[in-house]
Amino acid sequence: MNRQLGVCYYPEHWPEEIWAEDARRMADTGIAWARIGEFAWSRMEPEPGRLDWGWLDRAIDTLHAAGVGVVLGTPTATPPRWMLDRHPDMLAVDAQGRPRGFGSRRHYCFSHAGYVQECRRIVTLMAERYGRHPGLVAWQTDNEYGCHDTTLSYSAAARAAFRDWLAQRYQSIDKLNRDWGNVFWSMDYASFEQIGLPNLTVTEPNPAHVMAFRRFSSDQVVRFNRAQTEVLRRHSDAPLVHNYMGRITEFDHWAVGADLDIASWDSYPLGFLSDRLEATPEHKAAYLRQGDPDMQAFHHDLYRGVGRGRWWVMEQQPGPVNWAPWNPAPLPGMARLWAWEAFAHGAEAVSYFRWRQAPMAQEQMHAGLLRPDSAPAPALAEAAQVAREIADMPEVDPARAPVALVFDYASAWAWEIQPQGADFDYFRLALAVYRGLRKAGLSVDIIAPGTADLSPWKLVFAPGLMTLPGALRQAIAAGQTTVVAGPRTNSKTEEFAIPVPLPPALPGLDVVVDRVESLPPGAQVPLAQGGAFAHWFEHLDGSAAVVQATADGRPAMVASGKLFYLAGWPDAAALGQMVRALCEGAGIATEDLPEGLRLRDTAGHRFAFNYAAHPVTWQGREIAPAGVAWWPR
Amino acid sequence: MNRQLGVCYYPEHWPEEIWAEDARRMADTGIAWARIGEFAWSRMEPEPGRLDWGWLDRAIDTLHAAGVGVVLGTPTATPPRWMLDRHPDMLAVDAQGRPRGFGSRRHYCFSHAGYVQECRRIVTLMAERYGRHPGLVAWQTDNEYGCHDTTLSYSAAARAAFRDWLAQRYQSIDKLNRDWGNVFWSMDYASFEQIGLPNLTVTEPNPAHVMAFRRFSSDQVVRFNRAQTEVLRRHSDAPLVHNYMGRITEFDHWAVGADLDIASWDSYPLGFLSDRLEATPEHKAAYLRQGDPDMQAFHHDLYRGVGRGRWWVMEQQPGPVNWAPWNPAPLPGMARLWAWEAFAHGAEAVSYFRWRQAPMAQEQMHAGLLRPDSAPAPALAEAAQVAREIADMPEVDPARAPVALVFDYASAWAWEIQPQGADFDYFRLALAVYRGLRKAGLSVDIIAPGTADLSPWKLVFAPGLMTLPGALRQAIAAGQTTVVAGPRTNSKTEEFAIPVPLPPALPGLDVVVDRVESLPPGAQVPLAQGGAFAHWFEHLDGSAAVVQATADGRPAMVASGKLFYLAGWPDAAALGQMVRALCEGAGIATEDLPEGLRLRDTAGHRFAFNYAAHPVTWQGREIAPAGVAWWPR
Amino acid sequence: MNRQLGVCYYPEHWPEEIWAEDARRMADTGIAWARIGEFAWSRMEPEPGRLDWGWLDRAIDTLHAAGVGVVLGTPTATPPRWMLDRHPDMLAVDAQGRPRGFGSRRHYCFSHAGYVQECRRIVTLMAERYGRHPGLVAWQTDNEYGCHDTTLSYSAAARAAFRDWLAQRYQSIDKLNRDWGNVFWSMDYASFEQIGLPNLTVTEPNPAHVMAFRRFSSDQVVRFNRAQTEVLRRHSDAPLVHNYMGRITEFDHWAVGADLDIASWDSYPLGFLSDRLEATPEHKAAYLRQGDPDMQAFHHDLYRGVGRGRWWVMEQQPGPVNWAPWNPAPLPGMARLWAWEAFAHGAEAVSYFRWRQAPMAQEQMHAGLLRPDSAPAPALAEAAQVAREIADMPEVDPARAPVALVFDYASAWAWEIQPQGADFDYFRLALAVYRGLRKAGLSVDIIAPGTADLSPWKLVFAPGLMTLPGALRQAIAAGQTTVVAGPRTNSKTEEFAIPVPLPPALPGLDVVVDRVESLPPGAQVPLAQGGAFAHWFEHLDGSAAVVQATADGRPAMVASGKLFYLAGWPDAAALGQMVRALCEGAGIATEDLPEGLRLRDTAGHRFAFNYAAHPVTWQGREIAPAGVAWWPR
Repeated sequence: MNRQLGVCYYPEHWPEEIWAEDARRMADTGIAWARIGEFAWSRMEPEPGRLDWGWLDRAIDTLHAAGVGVVLGTPTATPPRWMLDRHPDMLAVDAQGRPRGFGSRRHYCFSHAGYVQECRRIVTLMAERYGRHPGLVAWQTDNEYGCHDTTLSYSAAARAAFRDWLAQRYQSIDKLNRDWGNVFWSMDYASFEQIGLPNLTVTEPNPAHVMAFRRFSSDQVVRFNRAQTEVLRRHSDAPLVHNYMGRITEFDHWAVGADLDIASWDSYPLGFLSDRLEATPEHKAAYLRQGDPDMQAFHHDLYRGVGRGRWWVMEQQPGPVNWAPWNPAPLPGMARLWAWEAFAHGAEAVSYFRWRQAPMAQEQMHAGLLRPDSAPAPALAEAAQVAREIADMPEVDPARAPVALVFDYASAWAWEIQPQGADFDYFRLALAVYRGLRKAGLSVDIIAPGTADLSPWKLVFAPGLMTLPGALRQAIAAGQTTVVAGPRTNSKTEEFAIPVPLPPALPGLDVVVDRVESLPPGAQVPLAQGGAFAHWFEHLDGSAAVVQATADGRPAMVASGKLFYLAGWPDAAALGQMVRALCEGAGIATEDLPEGLRLRDTAGHRFAFNYAAHPVTWQGREIAPAGVAWWPR
Repeated sequence: MNRQLGVCYYPEHWPEEIWAEDARRMADTGIAWARIGEFAWSRMEPEPGRLDWGWLDRAIDTLHAAGVGVVLGTPTATPPRWMLDRHPDMLAVDAQGRPRGFGSRRHYCFSHAGYVQECRRIVTLMAERYGRHPGLVAWQTDNEYGCHDTTLSYSAAARAAFRDWLAQRYQSIDKLNRDWGNVFWSMDYASFEQIGLPNLTVTEPNPAHVMAFRRFSSDQVVRFNRAQTEVLRRHSDAPLVHNYMGRITEFDHWAVGADLDIASWDSYPLGFLSDRLEATPEHKAAYLRQGDPDMQAFHHDLYRGVGRGRWWVMEQQPGPVNWAPWNPAPLPGMARLWAWEAFAHGAEAVSYFRWRQAPMAQEQMHAGLLRPDSAPAPALAEAAQVAREIADMPEVDPARAPVALVFDYASAWAWEIQPQGADFDYFRLALAVYRGLRKAGLSVDIIAPGTADLSPWKLVFAPGLMTLPGALRQAIAAGQTTVVAGPRTNSKTEEFAIPVPLPPALPGLDVVVDRVESLPPGAQVPLAQGGAFAHWFEHLDGSAAVVQATADGRPAMVASGKLFYLAGWPDAAALGQMVRALCEGAGIATEDLPEGLRLRDTAGHRFAFNYAAHPVTWQGREIAPAGVAWWPR
Repeated sequence: MNRQLGVCYYPEHWPEEIWAEDARRMADTGIAWARIGEFAWSRMEPEPGRLDWGWLDRAIDTLHAAGVGVVLGTPTATPPRWMLDRHPDMLAVDAQGRPRGFGSRRHYCFSHAGYVQECRRIVTLMAERYGRHPGLVAWQTDNEYGCHDTTLSYSAAARAAFRDWLAQRYQSIDKLNRDWGNVFWSMDYASFEQIGLPNLTVTEPNPAHVMAFRRFSSDQVVRFNRAQTEVLRRHSDAPLVHNYMGRITEFDHWAVGADLDIASWDSYPLGFLSDRLEATPEHKAAYLRQGDPDMQAFHHDLYRGVGRGRWWVMEQQPGPVNWAPWNPAPLPGMARLWAWEAFAHGAEAVSYFRWRQAPMAQEQMHAGLLRPDSAPAPALAEAAQVAREIADMPEVDPARAPVALVFDYASAWAWEIQPQGADFDYFRLALAVYRGLRKAGLSVDIIAPGTADLSPWKLVFAPGLMTLPGALRQAIAAGQTTVVAGPRTNSKTEEFAIPVPLPPALPGLDVVVDRVESLPPGAQVPLAQGGAFAHWFEHLDGSAAVVQATADGRPAMVASGKLFYLAGWPDAAALGQMVRALCEGAGIATEDLPEGLRLRDTAGHRFAFNYAAHPVTWQGREIAPAGVAWWPR
């Protein structure tokens, strides 16, 4: 399959006189397509109903003439100022009750029917005009759903829609009262019209109430996106894609992805290290100009799953960005390494953000492939190198990994609602397990909680899964695959109650969580076989075989056949010994890697990526800082 | 006197079919009574005016039939959803101006007259129906006044009531202007109707304004509670009790307690350690699963005072809770130790919260004596052991302690309003002094600022008392008791002005506070006799004898006869040497205790409690972790 | 020239019976004048239109009779309560959208036309009455503009005025859209009436939008002040002064100062150390009772510039204050040292705040020269000593310093809007450079960005200047003076865009900033010649000579002739070696000073101030803690 480079381009930001030259330089760099249009509504429709497609026609044609295709974005993340005059109540409202105003982007509530209708209108016009354009590579819907904390809205529109959603889900208010346990604290409702949004309560609201609101809010994103995909499919055969943002868990990407053809995400390794990673200062210092060695790979594997095999990096950091607390420059070579890592994980395309650094507005300090004065920025040469290399590239067809990790958005909501310990975070737990697997040299698939067949994998981890779906339960019961569940797995019903019989209630495993402890920083439960539990420890009861114990003799991991249950949150040392032991049991080879080195196996090759700021040597090969190596498997 | 165990029970949470079995198991465990009803308004009155007492009749009768009495709670902490339709303005408003909504509990403003009237109505109905029931042990009014920061409300109802309260207190606006010093910054008012609540000002409001608002807010709690006690006394002879929450200082418990027969409090040692205690990480780690060794005892002694000798623990933590930042499990034995400690401090009853862990709603992660599946949780056996032990118990009649500590809510408000150093907190200061006394093996009484006779005690501490009440001043002047005042004692008038002549203006003590310093963390004033002042240091002027000096020769403690004034906040080492020196002077024996061990003397016995996570040996006795020992005095 | 002591006095706070005695004691202490009146509107005009000047007449006359002049403050920082009835919408609104209420001070929006008119009215009445009084020394307008975060207001009045200001500045909405780059994210406006204030946006607003709002907000302060100066000049020849507050950068002091005759500021060394200084805990501990050794001098030099040579300290801390997180007492001698340091920097007057500590209201814990009981506080004797010393004083006429530092308020706004690294702060950068100069024993002038002639100085630093004004650019091009620009110098246009050609675009210096990095705490770029860059590092391109390089060989400072560009934020060690090297090149002598010692050269003398808490010895002189020494140059 053909791997491609793309770039994000904003013709409306630049004089038309330089478009052709830009297109030529893109083509010379080896860039196959440009993503355009996704913030340009005010230029497509300067006044309500007055459309101006001329500039966009010319921009697409200019690119196409130079051999550069377009990924066309729907502009719905940035409604123009006049939209607010037509729909003054379209703004999302934050948890403090304040409308989130005009002047940046994503200033809309997913539940506002009038705005959804406006989106259908503009998308229809775009699809009719460009849906069959020969330069069209794909459609991008909106931009970075959920970014800037925009999934949850506490607006009147959201409240009305939530009540409808509740009525549809529960049918009777008595059922809702029972399912939520509203008898507790006299929270019973007499009608759906009495139900408010779960913000600004005196103390914590009913977690079942919040969980329903979180499910609803995610569904609203799915509906919003679907309103666009329905229109686009009517007028175009180009594939549909959305660009997810890193570590956004407020809506279910599996569900949004089901309506799209390709998943993509926006990869900002240095921004994420600074802004979105729990790590020690030492870890952050060691990877200051490289990014965390597992954060990108995690998302690559996640979106390969969400895209059912088809996925892109839609925005790739090329230099310092503007939005993290601190914004260092990447080590020379990282703009190449990040692209190659994506390809090795199966990306069809990597698109740098952005072609030329904008001198104005919010992102003026965000580097591009060109400087604001059109001179090359350092990443341009690295992008050109990648383009040359992929033309002559090794096979990078993804191979099925031996190990899988279940990732579930509802669990992320559940443990945000009820962390029980202040630092219990689902994404953090999942990334910790993923990191443990990668440090053992393993390639990993990330799979949906609804997965019904685990036989493709030898070993599957399912930590922190609030509710075990029926299909996955049956797949576990089938017993073909080594499965590691826990902690907290299956500890809630879908209505956010503790199930009776008590968790984990796994097929064939006689064990019950008697009580749970959350542990403050520094408090640990040492394990007999090495490492310790931190953050979380469950006291288990039952007859299941104890395969790991705490230093004081309590069960730390129990098993029955191929099914294991983990009674806590293992630290890096504990994960290290557990992963090796489990892999050995499952017949999976592991490796000892130097700090900073990571591997990825494709169908025919093994890739190695050095995230360290110094050279590393492994199996006789020295790999430079920011270096990439590959060899046949 | 008969000591009892109780338990908190919610029949409305469970199928009626299991009530009888629950009651039987309670009786078998040795539980004398169950507290019920305090959150059940929506089930007592599902619609306005439609009362449903049937289920409650049957629940009480079922318990009574099994030999389990009831403490009946008024349900006013959880008004049902329909109440908001009747009184849309009944919600408290937070300091940011946001109404505090429905969906959890305590969603009412104490000043809302309409809601107070609704409370009178439901309490009247309950009192008429159950006031003479043979199973009735006591009434609990509402639940945990002030919890979730609910004492202070910035609602329109509060503002109107505050103006009335001010008019009543000051009679003329000119007097108010003079008393508050409103000439400062042109804050003069022309009428009471011009006075707002002291939130959202540009910079800090006048502390006199805030102090008045704090006094008013406390008075509103007293009035709210009294509206219920008046009704209850009309229809019932059962004793009246309220369950205070730990470290709530926003209203005057002495004043609320004056309208009740018994004080009780809700004791969550592990939650308080995690959430409500200033301590080093090392201290918190050492007591992670035991709780702070002085926090419970402090409250026991406080509420013995508030209850004029009669007091209970209404809610006793039995296992991990759900609401603190981190929620570990207690060491085995702590559920017993905590109960015995309460009895040794004179509690008539200890009631575990709760019988069975709820699988639903906000507190589903709060342990009970039973698990959600009705199997015994670890604390059940400990409760049963306590029940057996108290049946065969040693005498635990409280003895007058040799030492007393004055505790004053107005001072807590004063120093919250004007800490002068960011970490000056009255409760923290009082607990530090209390801890210093307990580490010397002493039993302590906590007494009200209005105490008029100090002769029962040999030594009395009165740190941080903003205004010395006349009666206490006279008691000090009587000179029978060694009294230690300071720092900050008597440094404000009741109207929050600095008195002239300057503080401390104590009878017979020629000393004046020339200036004060607050000290950031790490800054200390070392003392010649050991230890140092931290947080706070006062420069003293005057002829009083210097009994302790700073290392550089300034007065640290001065005295005249039996009256001592302390010029700073002593650290643990300074308190250690001072307490020993003062006790020696007052003829009180002190002890050297190992870390984690605490004593409590009753009329006939000495009790020892080991809060350490390891065994301790003292005077030839080894006491296990979580161990309790007693022997005749 | 005659140097004077003043004091801040509030006759309205005290019984009229003691005014004469107060005046006599002031005169005896050597105090030349009292500042009065600035918070007394409610006593000047108790009801709208009912004026009461009698008390103020008598107060001024009483002081004048004792030989004490008055600086008369306009009372506009504290509008009385009745003003709100007349102008309910006059309150400023905070960034969260909440009106900032009555009950403290500065509760007005600078943009409220009705309130500005009220201010003109009261100032006219005062000016007419007292403008020719023989005791009148000067007028103070308002009090501490900008204190308590009051420069920025998000009120309806501010929004309307902002739209007018924008229309005036840009004339056409198309120009505004172009200048701001509103095409980015579809932020185009169709009319000025569509533009809101830049708060509560979903993510960051357009920095050009914020920058315009910051310029507007500063202009509103200038206009507000000018409304008063116009009135005062019509009725009085006394000089006009405003008392600026330390580290307030929200409005342009150069612009406000242009309408006044004298600049003054309020100097609270211990408060600033605790509350307004980025420093290590060790630094704060070392200077706990002295204040930072450069913070006061920085402001002295700044306001000497703002006042075009004429400047005062209007409020001098005399003892512990009430408003910082922690409030220790000054070392004995500091109240003298601070005054002498001001005089050595050219102050015409130093006025202690306040005469007598108020026992009531917000500032009751703020020390004065007298205690609340009228006994002398420790600073009284120090003030009297200073008075005696200045009567017999050495020459303190300011000499032109060899070094200047450019200080620009717009740059402070720019980097607050776009720090790019979370700890990049313009004031902090300027103070760091200033500290580096002072540690080398240098006296410094602080100059405006509009300075057109640099020839008076041998060396000029201009760090972080967002836009290089034309006049300064020409002065640099003149090449007479060694100039050190960077980092970030000239990196934005006035409309907050990156200029093309790229920064720094300095005359004759062939260098371009290729990319920038912000660095988290702990991350550094070591320099070959000593020290390191922290916070910030720019990658430079171009042919300019590299005079300092990083340890790994990249340009750290480049030069052409006398123009230097600095590519990062130097730490103390780097500044130390750079300042010495640059001074050597510019023919300026530097000194090696012990920690805590600072020098200041006047026309004829060298002064030395020991900020250390221990004696220091330098060039054979031992100077006590808090000691001041001087000798002829």
